[in-house]
Amino acid sequence: MELIIKNGTVVTAKETYLADVGVAGGKIVAIAEKLEDPEARVIDATGKYVMPGIIDGHVHLALPFGGTVSADDFSSGTKAAAFGGVTTIVDFAIQMKGESLADAIARRRAEADGKVCIDYGLHVGITDAREEVLREIPEVISNGCPTFKLFMTYDAFVVDDGTLLSIIEKTTDSGGMVGVHAENHKIIGYLTARLLSEGKTAPQYHAVSRPDWCEAEATSRAIRLAEAVGGKLYIFHLTCSRALDEVVAGRERGMPVYAETCPQYLLLTADCYLEPDFGGAKYVMSPPLRTAFDNEALWKGLRDGYLQVVGSDHCPFTMEQKKLGLGDFTKIPNGAPGVETTLPLLYSEGVLKGRISLNRMVEVLSTNPACLFGLPNKGSLAVGYDADIVIFDPDKEVVLSYQDLHMCTDYSPYEGLRVKGYPVTTISRGRVIVENGIFTGDFTHGRFVARRLPQF
Amino acid sequence: MELIIKNGTVVTAKETYLADVGVAGGKIVAIAEKLEDPEARVIDATGKYVMPGIIDGHVHLALPFGGTVSADDFSSGTKAAAFGGVTTIVDFAIQMKGESLADAIARRRAEADGKVCIDYGLHVGITDAREEVLREIPEVISNGCPTFKLFMTYDAFVVDDGTLLSIIEKTTDSGGMVGVHAENHKIIGYLTARLLSEGKTAPQYHAVSRPDWCEAEATSRAIRLAEAVGGKLYIFHLTCSRALDEVVAGRERGMPVYAETCPQYLLLTADCYLEPDFGGAKYVMSPPLRTAFDNEALWKGLRDGYLQVVGSDHCPFTMEQKKLGLGDFTKIPNGAPGVETTLPLLYSEGVLKGRISLNRMVEVLSTNPACLFGLPNKGSLAVGYDADIVIFDPDKEVVLSYQDLHMCTDYSPYEGLRVKGYPVTTISRGRVIVENGIFTGDFTHGRFVARRLPQF
Amino acid sequence: MELIIKNGTVVTAKETYLADVGVAGGKIVAIAEKLEDPEARVIDATGKYVMPGIIDGHVHLALPFGGTVSADDFSSGTKAAAFGGVTTIVDFAIQMKGESLADAIARRRAEADGKVCIDYGLHVGITDAREEVLREIPEVISNGCPTFKLFMTYDAFVVDDGTLLSIIEKTTDSGGMVGVHAENHKIIGYLTARLLSEGKTAPQYHAVSRPDWCEAEATSRAIRLAEAVGGKLYIFHLTCSRALDEVVAGRERGMPVYAETCPQYLLLTADCYLEPDFGGAKYVMSPPLRTAFDNEALWKGLRDGYLQVVGSDHCPFTMEQKKLGLGDFTKIPNGAPGVETTLPLLYSEGVLKGRISLNRMVEVLSTNPACLFGLPNKGSLAVGYDADIVIFDPDKEVVLSYQDLHMCTDYSPYEGLRVKGYPVTTISRGRVIVENGIFTGDFTHGRFVARRLPQF
Amino acid sequence: MELIIKNGTVVTAKETYLADVGVAGGKIVAIAEKLEDPEARVIDATGKYVMPGIIDGHVHLALPFGGTVSADDFSSGTKAAAFGGVTTIVDFAIQMKGESLADAIARRRAEADGKVCIDYGLHVGITDAREEVLREIPEVISNGCPTFKLFMTYDAFVVDDGTLLSIIEKTTDSGGMVGVHAENHKIIGYLTARLLSEGKTAPQYHAVSRPDWCEAEATSRAIRLAEAVGGKLYIFHLTCSRALDEVVAGRERGMPVYAETCPQYLLLTADCYLEPDFGGAKYVMSPPLRTAFDNEALWKGLRDGYLQVVGSDHCPFTMEQKKLGLGDFTKIPNGAPGVETTLPLLYSEGVLKGRISLNRMVEVLSTNPACLFGLPNKGSLAVGYDADIVIFDPDKEVVLSYQDLHMCTDYSPYEGLRVKGYPVTTISRGRVIVENGIFTGDFTHGRFVARRLPQF
Repeated sequence: MELIIKNGTVVTAKETYLADVGVAGGKIVAIAEKLEDPEARVIDATGKYVMPGIIDGHVHLALPFGGTVSADDFSSGTKAAAFGGVTTIVDFAIQMKGESLADAIARRRAEADGKVCIDYGLHVGITDAREEVLREIPEVISNGCPTFKLFMTYDAFVVDDGTLLSIIEKTTDSGGMVGVHAENHKIIGYLTARLLSEGKTAPQYHAVSRPDWCEAEATSRAIRLAEAVGGKLYIFHLTCSRALDEVVAGRERGMPVYAETCPQYLLLTADCYLEPDFGGAKYVMSPPLRTAFDNEALWKGLRDGYLQVVGSDHCPFTMEQKKLGLGDFTKIPNGAPGVETTLPLLYSEGVLKGRISLNRMVEVLSTNPACLFGLPNKGSLAVGYDADIVIFDPDKEVVLSYQDLHMCTDYSPYEGLRVKGYPVTTISRGRVIVENGIFTGDFTHGRFVARRLPQF
Repeated sequence: MELIIKNGTVVTAKETYLADVGVAGGKIVAIAEKLEDPEARVIDATGKYVMPGIIDGHVHLALPFGGTVSADDFSSGTKAAAFGGVTTIVDFAIQMKGESLADAIARRRAEADGKVCIDYGLHVGITDAREEVLREIPEVISNGCPTFKLFMTYDAFVVDDGTLLSIIEKTTDSGGMVGVHAENHKIIGYLTARLLSEGKTAPQYHAVSRPDWCEAEATSRAIRLAEAVGGKLYIFHLTCSRALDEVVAGRERGMPVYAETCPQYLLLTADCYLEPDFGGAKYVMSPPLRTAFDNEALWKGLRDGYLQVVGSDHCPFTMEQKKLGLGDFTKIPNGAPGVETTLPLLYSEGVLKGRISLNRMVEVLSTNPACLFGLPNKGSLAVGYDADIVIFDPDKEVVLSYQDLHMCTDYSPYEGLRVKGYPVTTISRGRVIVENGIFTGDFTHGRFVARRLPQF
Repeated sequence: MELIIKNGTVVTAKETYLADVGVAGGKIVAIAEKLEDPEARVIDATGKYVMPGIIDGHVHLALPFGGTVSADDFSSGTKAAAFGGVTTIVDFAIQMKGESLADAIARRRAEADGKVCIDYGLHVGITDAREEVLREIPEVISNGCPTFKLFMTYDAFVVDDGTLLSIIEKTTDSGGMVGVHAENHKIIGYLTARLLSEGKTAPQYHAVSRPDWCEAEATSRAIRLAEAVGGKLYIFHLTCSRALDEVVAGRERGMPVYAETCPQYLLLTADCYLEPDFGGAKYVMSPPLRTAFDNEALWKGLRDGYLQVVGSDHCPFTMEQKKLGLGDFTKIPNGAPGVETTLPLLYSEGVLKGRISLNRMVEVLSTNPACLFGLPNKGSLAVGYDADIVIFDPDKEVVLSYQDLHMCTDYSPYEGLRVKGYPVTTISRGRVIVENGIFTGDFTHGRFVARRLPQF
Repeated sequence: MELIIKNGTVVTAKETYLADVGVAGGKIVAIAEKLEDPEARVIDATGKYVMPGIIDGHVHLALPFGGTVSADDFSSGTKAAAFGGVTTIVDFAIQMKGESLADAIARRRAEADGKVCIDYGLHVGITDAREEVLREIPEVISNGCPTFKLFMTYDAFVVDDGTLLSIIEKTTDSGGMVGVHAENHKIIGYLTARLLSEGKTAPQYHAVSRPDWCEAEATSRAIRLAEAVGGKLYIFHLTCSRALDEVVAGRERGMPVYAETCPQYLLLTADCYLEPDFGGAKYVMSPPLRTAFDNEALWKGLRDGYLQVVGSDHCPFTMEQKKLGLGDFTKIPNGAPGVETTLPLLYSEGVLKGRISLNRMVEVLSTNPACLFGLPNKGSLAVGYDADIVIFDPDKEVVLSYQDLHMCTDYSPYEGLRVKGYPVTTISRGRVIVENGIFTGDFTHGRFVARRLPQF
């Protein structure tokens, strides 16, 4: 064995127990009461949790958006991820008009390969569903990209309901899964035009322009479509109680619909948009932040199994970039940093406050994403799985600040928040990449993962 | 008094009792145990029901559709209506692109005024919601057209969700009400294209191209929009259990949503489309016929109050016209005859078979449409109301046939069906216009009714 | 004609119109624009509403309860009713153990006949469901008592679920209808014992001893039982949102379940129990008062049709009687005065505040009770119906006080409340019994009404 | 290490992977790619599943019932269990009237200790909830019996709703959990009396006497009670769609309600009761078998997480015993054999037919029962857990027959059913107790397990 993690408390989606974990060839090869190997490096995890690394299925690195590009590239982004205990990300290959899906994936891989310190996969964003593009789908799936993202809004990306239906049908035929960004495009357009015509251009009107019911409506619609063709459906970044109600109703009808929420929708509210001096722009993302009532509904949904995944929707911009929208909220780049803080936030605000159990946290951060995104060798701490491991110190207290975090932004939505419990060591396929606050990885280590079919 | 109807059984939405009904000046002036007036004409209604005339809120006379025009004009259509016990119709003024609403109404009134034997109103169909068109809405409402129809499908008419929302807001501000044709346009487009590309062009594919769930989805969406702005909403021609579920859910959330169904959706099924020799084309209408399960769900909805209105969606075409769609079901003109048969069908299939009560029939055919469409002087048999009356013989048996009916078509969807109970005398504002199978009205009698605000 | 009410605005469940109303032989014989008869007495109703008299289906006169007897007997109670615009009450013949139902009815009729100024009927309370008692049911129904009350609580009256089921079956077979007092007896017993053991004996603990969920549970249970045997079910005095949810769910499953609420549950809350100096005892009734949230849920249920009837549950006691429960809330006689104030409260707090329409008020106070309780000649203002009429002055303002009201109590739950709109004239079968604050009736006028089968 | 299981496929609630499993001191001490220890006994599990042993939380050994005693005692019952891959049972200590809970537990332990080949725990059945009995609850819980069973039916055991509420409160205060047998006692009594009076005494009337709605009603009621006091609730042997609906509704309201079903309710229907020659008696159990519709609803509930546990409700009687009810179905002892067949039935009918996944099977048979019944060292295959292991051969085909099974009955409800996949080796705390069809355990091995608090 190359590495033994000794004396830690192993935490999985279902179990919590004391054991040593042994690693060889990038895999977990042994879990035992006591492991000894004079050849192996030993990490002492006494008093710490040893958990499967986080799989963040919703990350946007170097995303061109609104005339700028999200601030983290694959190197800085995966490094920040590693500091946050994340060992796999699934980013997006969003097709450009006229492009084939294969080309979109190749283009995106060219940006990432050789520049990532952890493993990554790609959801495929279809924006131009020409006949030949639909025909590509089976091969795209068999080549390791079995999950797709369709946008029900954004001028540049939006697909209509007929297209959405056809893609759900096509992916379902090959065992893939469609996920949606669910907001009603035309409603947003109408409300936005009215707000602007009334001179309402400040960041807080971003939230007004995309109300919860227009997310709920689109969620309901997408579920109906998937239901009609017997397909699975994944809801990216569900933010509100009303949309959750639609998911619950769909599941009760027997629909295999899954939903993700993000820490910001669990913890922050639309009041943030009122932060002075254009500070509200920090929180401009889509869908927008909602209410404290919605926060609690989402925690409950997470606990009761109606929400299966927490992702970060990491998409950072600097305040300089955000200022593109000074005087016009529609020009504020949408997104906020998050990949590094998901785990400590879920633990401190979720587990310690009794909203979810420690095992449930592991399930929604690692085990469920592995199943849903087709990563059978990841997401669990068990023999034969990739040695993607995070060692988490439940006693370490940190005051969050962008200055200490590693994401390429000059603010954090959680600036000044004290959290208890923090990842201290991150291991990717057996290699220690972060240890006691020091980055020890390298950017040739991470690989593109050819994913299998979603299972749940 | 000019007219006394003697010895009949008066039936209203809530009461059934023996009384004489006296008419003067086109109004009901007295209801009493015994009325005598030597000046008055007397109609003996012994053994018959005396009911408020039917208000058919869904009629398309002389409607240009798919390169042809529906076969009944205002004269033939209102005459057929009169034979069916209908004393008021609400047809549509559907705006042409570029036209103002006022012009659309004026254009339509020019087609109707002087050519109707019963009273009529106009719902306003908005297809081109330019800014100045929205500004017209308050005046259109105050001028007597407080109800609007928006199409969520049909290339020529469809409005997007933002437009729909804006019109619901605008009409709500002035006390008006929007109704919708609820089907998902893009889904229909996608399914249709696929069917045609597979060579599936026969009439039965019309139903396949517009499944129940795409009606349910659009119904849900329209309700969400109206809910968001606190507006009333009317669902035209609801056809299926799944769409009804959405109405029920909306009403449970406290939404003032109302829904209409039609006799064809209560009585016929998609099996009709299989009628040989292109006979299926007779039943091509949108939304299409569904299943026997849906029939029963609608009867139950009608009984339990979740459906408030039965209209006919009368829109007849001849078989010659239907043949425009030989070889391509999308070219079959959509619609079927119905204004003349609604009452006998509801009575024979609904009341006599114990599905709804006699009073409930009057409520859904007359009293509720009067409230919802803003006709406070119509829809009830009470003093001061317009003397719009139908005398109905519960013992008269008729075998329905297009040859005996008065609608301008060469078929009936109910050809050969034996009904028991039939309207024998129809009175419009005190004037007898049909009596014992003879038309005694004239086409200068009917008037455009400036309607008031919907009440419910 | 003996009587003509001139120039009033007739209000029914569905219509509002100006007309004169003519009465002869105790019946309405004519409704007309103008009625003239030199023989007839004329009442001028200019500016007033002419409505069907109220049918109060929930009244307890001279009810033995907890060692005392409710304070109004049939004379004082029906007189107070008349002042409140009530023209029919349905009281109860509650069987004593060992007694036959026929004897219970005869006993109760002996108390009432000749002592009532308005008509009355009797629901039959079954407390001892011996085999021969069950066999009596068909005859009891055909003799004019088609509605039954079963108590799911109260030691003296309670029946178990098997008995309840058997009676629903038996009454359903003969076309009758069971109503229930729905609270969970054993839960109340348990909570009460605990409260008393903790020394919690003040009136406010009455409410604590019978929480809303124990009413909801019993309501759900009764609906399940009726559903199992295909029977109709009536819920007496539904008080809370959670119980209403159960009714709504039952109706959605297609169950013919009907529910009544009372003004006190629409207007008062459990805060009343905190009134000092044992004042809380005034409001001790079962089920108890709830919250403002429940009030609003009930108004909404009334408006949307989920609640069909408002009754008073009139059961007055004097403060002297209430003091039987000084030091032990379980000994406070349950009940409060109400038969006289239902109409002005519904109008002032319901109609004027926009919660229900004027027509809906008539429907829930008169028309629906007539249908549900089998009174086909009552509940509507139409020719041939009993001339049970109330003339209501919408402009009359009254400050409610027990000193001016006619119920035999020395308090009113609404003491000091200003209402706008008040009944001024009450007519029972053509006879004016209250006019401008003067009682002009007599106690030989009222009759026992042999009721028909419930219809709805 | 004492034992190594080599080359098997480890299956847990969330993972499936190849590994060797090492055992020492009755615990799992290592799971690794390859384990070697010359001292250790080796079992080769090539091609087989290595799973946590089944925890059957619903077993009735030597249960006195209806004048007889269930046919398996602790020795024969635990031996049969071992053959079925069961490594822990939770049986019941049902209090006799007048007895203390501590005495009931001691009495039952006296029957079991020294006579069990696998571990066992005891749910405590409270039938006589005297004040001092309630006061015992905290100590009973801390002494290792944290779960209680309350009977809502059976004359000998039934508790009323007040008692049920008080016990839920009391157990909740100490972290325990109440489970219920949910059927409406009075309804069953009424229906039974009627059936017997009509001469309907054959086994099929057992099902008629306890319809699904009376189970659904009691389920709803128990949930309401637990909800009122914030307690967890466990539903034993849920059998039908209507009861499942109540569980789903409770969970949606946020209630921590859990439910178990049994193989017989997933696989058999009430048609079994028609088996000739009194054969229907084999299937007499309570609640009774339902319909194929219910079967499918339960499978779906199991898959979607609304049902968390499968137990056997093992309670065998011989045909001789069953004949106590010849001529009177109420005298047929209630129960059937099952502890030995749960696992092969779930695999063959559930996993192989695609109704649930292999991991989900492990979750509902082992991992969930361990959490819910407070067995933190059992139910998972992980280091530090008890080495309770079943080796399952997915290729072994067996035709089920009572002659080959080990339960003390002379029939099987599944006689002649061919299953594919069968447990071949069972290990209890490291000791092989069944191997290749040979029992190798002994009855001093099994222990009473002092259970901890339920977790979920």
